[in-house]
Amino acid sequence: MRKAGPATGLFCTPRVSRFAIVSGEATWVRTINLIERYQAIRAHSLALVQPLSAEDCNVQSMPDASPAKWHLAHTSWFFETLILQALTEGYTAHDPAYAFLFNSYYNALGERHARPQRGLLSRPSLDEVLRYRTVVDDAMLVQLSSTQATTELLHLTEIGLNHEQQHQELLLTDIKHALFCNPLRPAYRTEPANIATVAANKPSWRRFEAGLYRIGHSGEGFCYDNETPEHQHYLQAFELNSQLVRNGEYLEFIQAGGYEQAELWLSDGWDWRLQQQQTAPLYWDLDSLSEYTAYGMVALRPEAPVCHLSFYEADAYARWAGALLPTEAEWELGCRQYREDDAAADTVLHPQRSAWLNQLWQWTASPYQAYPGYRPPPGPLGEYNAKFMCNQMVLRGGSVFTPPGHSRPTYRNFFPPHSCWQMSGLRLARDAQSS
Amino acid sequence: MRKAGPATGLFCTPRVSRFAIVSGEATWVRTINLIERYQAIRAHSLALVQPLSAEDCNVQSMPDASPAKWHLAHTSWFFETLILQALTEGYTAHDPAYAFLFNSYYNALGERHARPQRGLLSRPSLDEVLRYRTVVDDAMLVQLSSTQATTELLHLTEIGLNHEQQHQELLLTDIKHALFCNPLRPAYRTEPANIATVAANKPSWRRFEAGLYRIGHSGEGFCYDNETPEHQHYLQAFELNSQLVRNGEYLEFIQAGGYEQAELWLSDGWDWRLQQQQTAPLYWDLDSLSEYTAYGMVALRPEAPVCHLSFYEADAYARWAGALLPTEAEWELGCRQYREDDAAADTVLHPQRSAWLNQLWQWTASPYQAYPGYRPPPGPLGEYNAKFMCNQMVLRGGSVFTPPGHSRPTYRNFFPPHSCWQMSGLRLARDAQSS
Amino acid sequence: MRKAGPATGLFCTPRVSRFAIVSGEATWVRTINLIERYQAIRAHSLALVQPLSAEDCNVQSMPDASPAKWHLAHTSWFFETLILQALTEGYTAHDPAYAFLFNSYYNALGERHARPQRGLLSRPSLDEVLRYRTVVDDAMLVQLSSTQATTELLHLTEIGLNHEQQHQELLLTDIKHALFCNPLRPAYRTEPANIATVAANKPSWRRFEAGLYRIGHSGEGFCYDNETPEHQHYLQAFELNSQLVRNGEYLEFIQAGGYEQAELWLSDGWDWRLQQQQTAPLYWDLDSLSEYTAYGMVALRPEAPVCHLSFYEADAYARWAGALLPTEAEWELGCRQYREDDAAADTVLHPQRSAWLNQLWQWTASPYQAYPGYRPPPGPLGEYNAKFMCNQMVLRGGSVFTPPGHSRPTYRNFFPPHSCWQMSGLRLARDAQSS
Amino acid sequence: MRKAGPATGLFCTPRVSRFAIVSGEATWVRTINLIERYQAIRAHSLALVQPLSAEDCNVQSMPDASPAKWHLAHTSWFFETLILQALTEGYTAHDPAYAFLFNSYYNALGERHARPQRGLLSRPSLDEVLRYRTVVDDAMLVQLSSTQATTELLHLTEIGLNHEQQHQELLLTDIKHALFCNPLRPAYRTEPANIATVAANKPSWRRFEAGLYRIGHSGEGFCYDNETPEHQHYLQAFELNSQLVRNGEYLEFIQAGGYEQAELWLSDGWDWRLQQQQTAPLYWDLDSLSEYTAYGMVALRPEAPVCHLSFYEADAYARWAGALLPTEAEWELGCRQYREDDAAADTVLHPQRSAWLNQLWQWTASPYQAYPGYRPPPGPLGEYNAKFMCNQMVLRGGSVFTPPGHSRPTYRNFFPPHSCWQMSGLRLARDAQSS
Repeated sequence: MRKAGPATGLFCTPRVSRFAIVSGEATWVRTINLIERYQAIRAHSLALVQPLSAEDCNVQSMPDASPAKWHLAHTSWFFETLILQALTEGYTAHDPAYAFLFNSYYNALGERHARPQRGLLSRPSLDEVLRYRTVVDDAMLVQLSSTQATTELLHLTEIGLNHEQQHQELLLTDIKHALFCNPLRPAYRTEPANIATVAANKPSWRRFEAGLYRIGHSGEGFCYDNETPEHQHYLQAFELNSQLVRNGEYLEFIQAGGYEQAELWLSDGWDWRLQQQQTAPLYWDLDSLSEYTAYGMVALRPEAPVCHLSFYEADAYARWAGALLPTEAEWELGCRQYREDDAAADTVLHPQRSAWLNQLWQWTASPYQAYPGYRPPPGPLGEYNAKFMCNQMVLRGGSVFTPPGHSRPTYRNFFPPHSCWQMSGLRLARDAQSS
Repeated sequence: MRKAGPATGLFCTPRVSRFAIVSGEATWVRTINLIERYQAIRAHSLALVQPLSAEDCNVQSMPDASPAKWHLAHTSWFFETLILQALTEGYTAHDPAYAFLFNSYYNALGERHARPQRGLLSRPSLDEVLRYRTVVDDAMLVQLSSTQATTELLHLTEIGLNHEQQHQELLLTDIKHALFCNPLRPAYRTEPANIATVAANKPSWRRFEAGLYRIGHSGEGFCYDNETPEHQHYLQAFELNSQLVRNGEYLEFIQAGGYEQAELWLSDGWDWRLQQQQTAPLYWDLDSLSEYTAYGMVALRPEAPVCHLSFYEADAYARWAGALLPTEAEWELGCRQYREDDAAADTVLHPQRSAWLNQLWQWTASPYQAYPGYRPPPGPLGEYNAKFMCNQMVLRGGSVFTPPGHSRPTYRNFFPPHSCWQMSGLRLARDAQSS
Repeated sequence: MRKAGPATGLFCTPRVSRFAIVSGEATWVRTINLIERYQAIRAHSLALVQPLSAEDCNVQSMPDASPAKWHLAHTSWFFETLILQALTEGYTAHDPAYAFLFNSYYNALGERHARPQRGLLSRPSLDEVLRYRTVVDDAMLVQLSSTQATTELLHLTEIGLNHEQQHQELLLTDIKHALFCNPLRPAYRTEPANIATVAANKPSWRRFEAGLYRIGHSGEGFCYDNETPEHQHYLQAFELNSQLVRNGEYLEFIQAGGYEQAELWLSDGWDWRLQQQQTAPLYWDLDSLSEYTAYGMVALRPEAPVCHLSFYEADAYARWAGALLPTEAEWELGCRQYREDDAAADTVLHPQRSAWLNQLWQWTASPYQAYPGYRPPPGPLGEYNAKFMCNQMVLRGGSVFTPPGHSRPTYRNFFPPHSCWQMSGLRLARDAQSS
Repeated sequence: MRKAGPATGLFCTPRVSRFAIVSGEATWVRTINLIERYQAIRAHSLALVQPLSAEDCNVQSMPDASPAKWHLAHTSWFFETLILQALTEGYTAHDPAYAFLFNSYYNALGERHARPQRGLLSRPSLDEVLRYRTVVDDAMLVQLSSTQATTELLHLTEIGLNHEQQHQELLLTDIKHALFCNPLRPAYRTEPANIATVAANKPSWRRFEAGLYRIGHSGEGFCYDNETPEHQHYLQAFELNSQLVRNGEYLEFIQAGGYEQAELWLSDGWDWRLQQQQTAPLYWDLDSLSEYTAYGMVALRPEAPVCHLSFYEADAYARWAGALLPTEAEWELGCRQYREDDAAADTVLHPQRSAWLNQLWQWTASPYQAYPGYRPPPGPLGEYNAKFMCNQMVLRGGSVFTPPGHSRPTYRNFFPPHSCWQMSGLRLARDAQSS
C-alpha cells in the first residue's frame, strides 16, 4: 500500500511488454477493458467520499495521514503528470500550482508542499478538486479511446489505476483516523444490519517442508516492481496457523499483563509502548470493551480478528503465544496453498472472519528489502517503491479496506514497525514440530 | 484581545452596578439598546465568515490560532454557559458535548478539548454550528426581552458581546494566517477600488511633563477588569511620536542590517530571530517588496504603518532608531490627549494611516501585570484576564481588525513577545529632551 | 545574579568616576584595598571547589547550569579580556582558544562555544584552568600594583570582582543541582554540627503608607547599572510580612491540594506544573519529608524558610494564602527599613532563619525591566544586564550562597519564572488594611 | 559489537557444553588459559584509559555514547552480577547502588539509571571505579582458581570477557566522539612515527556461484547466540570487490554532487542527510581535506579506506558507483574464502589498508534479524542480542578498534542505519556478470 509517511510503494511488471507482441486487435480489446476499469475505479474514489462533507475531506489528523481531498487530487495529478503531460504533445496542466501541491514524494518531479501541512489546504476547494478529476478523466478517456493508444499508455494507465486503488485504501484508513480524533467519534458509515456473524473456525497448524521455493510474481497480470524478480529461496520446515489471531485471544494477552512485561517486547517496541503509554490496540476502549470502527464505536467481538496492531504489538503477542511471525516467504507459500476463494468477498468495512486475503494486513517477520536481482525502473516511477526499502516491515494479505481485485499472494505492503492506523493484524507461525 | 494561545483577556467593570439603582424604565431602555447591539454584533460575526467556505472555516494553521468555525461556536457557548445555563432554571444545553469542544480555557468550567486539535473538528459541521448560533440567539432574545431581565443578565450580556468582538478580531487574524499558509496565498476579500491614499503626515515629537497621573478606566461605559482600578502613577517627563512607524522606515532598518546585529536585540529576541530565521516581518516578501494582506499579496506602501511585528522586532527597531517603546501609561496619556476622532474610521482591512486607535495594535514596553489594587472577579470570569499576567507584553490602540466601538484609550491587549500574527506595530517614545 | 540560561546580569555605577577627582594618594589607598579584595575574592572561588573532584567540576546537569570548572575559567577570561587585553598594550592571551570556550554571552566579543555543551569540555583540564587563574592573577596584580593604575582599571576590576562573586553563587547552585542529579545524592559538604536552631519568630504585618518614594541605588559604593538611575516611584499603601514563608507553611499548601487546583496558578504556571509533573519544590522528597541540600538529604525543618521555588509556585502560594508577592519597589522599601544587621551573617549553606538579606532570594511580582531613564553602558558591558530585560522576574535579597558583602537593598537579581534551581523563596505582601 | 543506544548484541554458543564431558584435567587446563585471558583482557581495558584524565573518562557526548568510566564500571558489574552474585552463595555486592547505576539494558536485572544521564555521574569517581574493578577481579580469580570451577563459571566468564572486549571497542569509539566534540580537537594518542604507508592494491571483482551455502557459526570456539544456528541459505551468483572503498573514491562521490542528489539516497537517508546538514563523513573537514582520528586531525589519505559512514551514506555511495552493498551471507562467504591472515594485524588506531577483518566494520544490505531456528537463551542473557532485532543493519568485519582475537567471519555487529560514530565503511558487491 502506498504509504503516507516515510511511505510504501507499488509498481508495474515488465510483463506488460507482452503488449508489444500482441496484435492490434488484442490491444484494442485490452483498451476497452481498461476504459471500463478506469471509469469504475475512478468512480469508486468518488463513492468513498460520498458520506463525507467538504470539511471532513480537508482534515489531516497526523503527518502520516492525508486529507481525503488530497488523495482525490493527488491520484489525478498522478495521471496528469505521468501520462497526460509525459505522453501528450502540448498538453497544458490544468493548474500549474497543482504540481507543487499534489506531488507526494517524487523528487524527480520537483519541489512539493510540506506533507504535514496538507490539512491547511482549504483551497483548492473540494468542488475544484472534483472538477479537476473530471478534466483529467476527460483527457484520459480521449487518450485511451484513441486509435493510437500505445502500449506505454496502457501500461502507465494500469499503474495509475493500481496507484488510485492504493490511495482508496489510504483514504479510508486516514479518514477513519481523522474521525476517531474527534471526541464525538462519528461513524464513517452506518453499520449494515445484516453483517454475517463470525464463523468460529478452530485454529490448526499447517506444515510446510524444507526446500527451495520460488518466491515473487511471475506470469500474467499486473504486479509492482517490488514483487519481482521471481527468485529461489530456501526455507526450513515451518508451520503456519490456519486462522488470524482474534480479539478474544489478544484480550487474554492484555489481561495476562502483556503490555507490562518488557521481556515480551523488542527493545524499540518497549520504548514505543512506554512513550505512547499504549495499553491496548489503537482503537480499543478497554473500559467498555469496544473498539472504534468505520461504523463508530462497536462492542468488541471476541471471534473477529484483532486489527490496528503495530508490528511491535504483533511481535510481542507472538512471543507471548510461544510462536513467531511468519517471514514473508513463508506467508506467500501458505497463501498460495490455502487461500480461500475471494469471489465471495464480503463488503463490510471491519474484518469479521479469518482469511488469507482481503480481511487484514498481516505483519510478517521480514524487513522490507529488495528481492535478489531487483532493479528499480528508470525515471520517477523508480521512486515508487525502491527508496523505502529501509526501516519498514512487510505486511501481506490486503484488508477489508483494500479495493476489490487489488490484492494477490505476492503483494508486498510495508510500513514502519510503530504504524498502527492501518488495518493490520497477524497470523502465527512456528518452527516445524517433529511428527 | 482574548488571546488564543497562552492567551489574553478582557472584562467587565463594577460600573454596571449602577444598574441596580436606576428605575425600571431606565433598565428597559437599556435592554432595548442591548437587544439591538446583540443582534448587530452577532450578525457581524456571520458577515465575517461570508467570504469563506466551510473548508476555510475548519482550518487551524497553528496552536495559537483557532478555526473560524470554532470562534463561531465558542462565542455562542460563552452565552449559553455563562448566561443561559447560569441564569435560567431548567435550561438544557443544546448539545452536552459542546461544553467539552468549545470551552477555551476556563478550568472552572470543566475539561476541554486540546487546543492544538481544534482543526480536526470537522464535526459539528459549519451548518450545525450556525444552527447552534440560532438556537442560542433565540434563547438569548427571549431572556433579553423578558420583563424580568435582571441587571446581572444585562451585565453578562455586555461581557458576552465584548467577548464576541474580541473573537471577531481573532477570527480575522487567524483566517489571515491560515490563508497565508496556503502556497496559493488566496485573498480573504477583494481589495476595494477606492482605498484612500495614505496621508503623509510629518512625524513630530510631543512632550509630556513629569507628574502623578491617573491611569486606568473610570466613569461610565464598559471596560474589562484588567483596566481597573484607576490608580495614580508617577511618570518622568517623556515624549511620544505623533506617527506610527511606517513600512518605508522599517525597510531602512532591514537594509541597514537590523536583523543581523545582535546588539540591537534583546537576548530572547535574538534567539527567536535566529531560530525562526526571521529576516523581515511575518507577511513580507522582501524579493518582491510586497506583503500578504487580507486582500492577498499587495505591493508594500512605504507610507503605510508597518504591521505584524513581534515585540522583539518592535523593540529592536526602537533601539536602532535611538528611541524607546512607550510604557503603557505613557501611551495612555498620549492617546487621551491626541487621539483623532474615530467617527471617520475607515473600513479597510489593512492599515493605511497613522492613528492612536483602530489602525494598529502598538507594542508597549510594559509587561502585562495587575494594576495596584486589582482583584479578579469571582467565578469563571476571574479566569478571563488575571491568569495571563505573566510572560506577555501589553499592546494598545486596536486595529483595523478590531470591531467598531470596541477600542478605547484604557484598553489593554496582551500577547507573548514573539507573537506577530496579530496586527501589531509600534509608535516611538523617548526621554524628554531638554528644551 | 548573572544568570546562566537566558541569563541575568549585574553592573557598575558611574559613581566610580569620583576616582577621577580624588588625589593620587586616595587612589593608592583604594588600590591597596582592591588588591586585598582581589586576592580574597579570587581565593574564595578556589575554596568553593575544594570539596570537589576534577570529575565533579566538569559536570553540567542542564543547559541553564555550567560546570564549576567553566565558572573558574570564565571569570578569569572576564578579567583577561575586559581588563588585561583591553587596557594593556601588547598583552598576549594565555590561550587564544579560551576566548571561544569561555565567553558566556557577549556577542560583542565574538563567537562562542554552545552553552549546553560546556560539560563536554574535559580539556582544558581543571589543572590547566587553575594554572590559567594563576597567570591571570599574576598579570592583574602587576597592573593593580602599578603606580599608573588608572581609574578605569580600578573601576573595571571592581566590576570583575562583583562578576566573580555572582559566579561564586552560580557555582554553588549549579554544583548542587549536578550532585542532586546523581542518584547517590552526594553531599557537597558535611553539615556542621552546631547549626543554630531556627528562631521561631512570629510573623507580623508591617504597614507602609502611600506616597512617592525614591527607588534604586544612589550614593557611594558599587552597584550594577540596572539598579540605576535612582528615580521617583508612586506606591499605594501596602503591608509586608516580617517573615519569609516557611517549609511548614508550604507543606500545608501542598496538603491542602495546592498543586491540584488550577485556579491558584497563573496559566503559564499551571502548564509548567503539569508538564514538569511538579508536586512539591524541586529538591523535596515528600515521602520522607526531607530535602536535598548542600549537606545531602536532610529532614525538612518546618521553621526554616522554604526555598527552591519557581516564581509560579511562589505566586500560587501567595494566592492560596490570600496575599500577594511584593513588587520590587515595595520590597526595597521594606528592606531599607527593617533589614537586620548582616554583620552576624551565619556561614551555613542552607537557609535557617528569616531575614531580608542573605538567606533567600525572594521572588517579587515585578517583571525585570529598565528603570525610567536607564541606559546601558557602551561596549560589551552593555550586554551585562540590559539584554535580559524580558521574560524574567526580579528577585531580591541574596541567599546563603551569595558571597559576603555582595548583597544590598537595591540589588536586582532576575530569572525566568520557571527557574527553581536558584535559592529562591518568598515573603508575602498585601494591600494595606484599613485600621 | 554491543551497541550503546538502541543497542546491539552478541553472545555465547551452546558449544561450551562440551566442557561437561571433558575430563577434570582438561577443565583445569582450560581454566588456566581462562585466568590468563581474564587478566590480559581486564588489563587491556585499563590500558585504554591510560591516556585519559578522570575528566575525560566522565564525558558523555551523546545519548548513544557512554563515558569511559561507565564502560569500566559496567563491564565489572557484568561479572559481579552474572557470575559472582549468580553463582556464589552469600556473595555481597561491592556497592548495592551499582546495580542501578551500571546496568545497561537488562530489564530482567531491575531498574536502571537513564542512559542519557551517564555523563552526570561524577560519583563514584574514577578511582572508586578502578577500586571496584580490583575487588571484582580478586573475587573472580578466587572463583576461577577454585578446584570446583564449574562449566557454567567458565562459560559465563568467556561471555564476560567477550562482553568486555565489545566495550573496549565502544570505549574507543565513544571517547573519540567525546574528544571530537571539544573544539580543541585533542588527540586520544600521539600518532606513531612509523605507520606503514598504504599498499595500493588494485580493486578487482571476485565471483561466487549460485547455490545453497551454510551460513552462521559452527564448530569449536566462542560465538554469540545471534551467529547461530548454522543454517542453509540459497544465494544467486554474485561478485564482491577485493578492496574496501577508499577516501579518494568517496571524495569523488562528494565532488560529483553525491550529497545533493536525492535519487541516490533511500528516503529515510535523504531525510537524515537534510536534517543533519551532512555533506561529508562525520569526522571529515572538507575545507582542509583532513579528518579527525584518534591521533587528532590528520590529512586525508586517498588510499586509506573511508570510515565513519552511516548506512545511508554507504548505500548512496554504492548506488552512485553502480553497485550494491553485499548481504551479510554474501560477505560471510567472501570473508571465509579470501580473508588475509590476521596474525600480522597492525596496531594502529586508524584504518590504513584494505582487509576483510580488523580494519573497518563494513555495512551490509542485511537488516539485523534472527537466523532461522534461532532462540534466545533463557534469563537475562536472552536480552543480550535478541531484543535488538529490529531497525538495525548488520555490519561485518571488525575494525582497528576491535580488540585482537575478537573478530571472526560469522560475527554480526549491528547499528541503526544513521549511526556513523562507529568505525564503519563499506565494500562493494554486484550481481554476477555474465562471463
